[in-house]
Amino acid sequence: MSAASDALILFANEAFYAAFASGDPVAMNDVWARKATLACLHPGADPLFDRDDIMESWGQILTGSPPPVTCRQPRIVSRAGVALVVCYEAIGEGGLVATNGFVLEEGRWRMVLHQGGPCETVPAADAQSEISARPN
Amino acid sequence: MSAASDALILFANEAFYAAFASGDPVAMNDVWARKATLACLHPGADPLFDRDDIMESWGQILTGSPPPVTCRQPRIVSRAGVALVVCYEAIGEGGLVATNGFVLEEGRWRMVLHQGGPCETVPAADAQSEISARPN
Repeated sequence: MSAASDALILFANEAFYAAFASGDPVAMNDVWARKATLACLHPGADPLFDRDDIMESWGQILTGSPPPVTCRQPRIVSRAGVALVVCYEAIGEGGLVATNGFVLEEGRWRMVLHQGGPCETVPAADAQSEISARPN
Repeated sequence: MSAASDALILFANEAFYAAFASGDPVAMNDVWARKATLACLHPGADPLFDRDDIMESWGQILTGSPPPVTCRQPRIVSRAGVALVVCYEAIGEGGLVATNGFVLEEGRWRMVLHQGGPCETVPAADAQSEISARPN
């Protein structure tokens, strides 16, 4: 797959973190696929498969003060049907590691999978590897 | 995709837990893809992408006394290029939740992704939903 296609996958991943960091439930709703089967695994919670349940969970997370999350070192590990991106989620001094999955729906990559979980260490910010998820 | 195809995906998922529960590094090596890009996210550890590093991590986990892990409520959430299965991993009274990814290599589904992480509650064993990962 071309570098341009990879850029679109990473753009979709970035859009997820932009919605996450900005606490914008409308943007978060826009990120997720409309028709595909979904799964969302928040750390310490039971997996969610119903789209409404997933959006409700994000609504609860984003209400109030969403964490200042940034994506670090995103790496595309699959482009076959489902695009899979593994990345760190830097939050303050700590953070998580996540697997994010995307499918093409009407020409646009939309999220079908998110699993965040604990990791050992979140790498330091690196201008080359970090995608700021903060909106301008 | 047909029910027969789904059965093959779940069989690959079951083979992973059979290798895990039996502490068999040769079987674990056989489960993972040979050519595809891989990612393995053990809870609390940094993500691994190199096949040798992934196999070494499993070698360490499987050495000694592997946990009596069983797979519960496996659910196929994607069949497009990468097959994704979300399931609980019951271990003793607790356990984890996992996303497992598989690709077809030479006609056989092989693992390309594993992320295990904490969940709220592991559902009780259910004859209809549980796949025993213990070898006969």
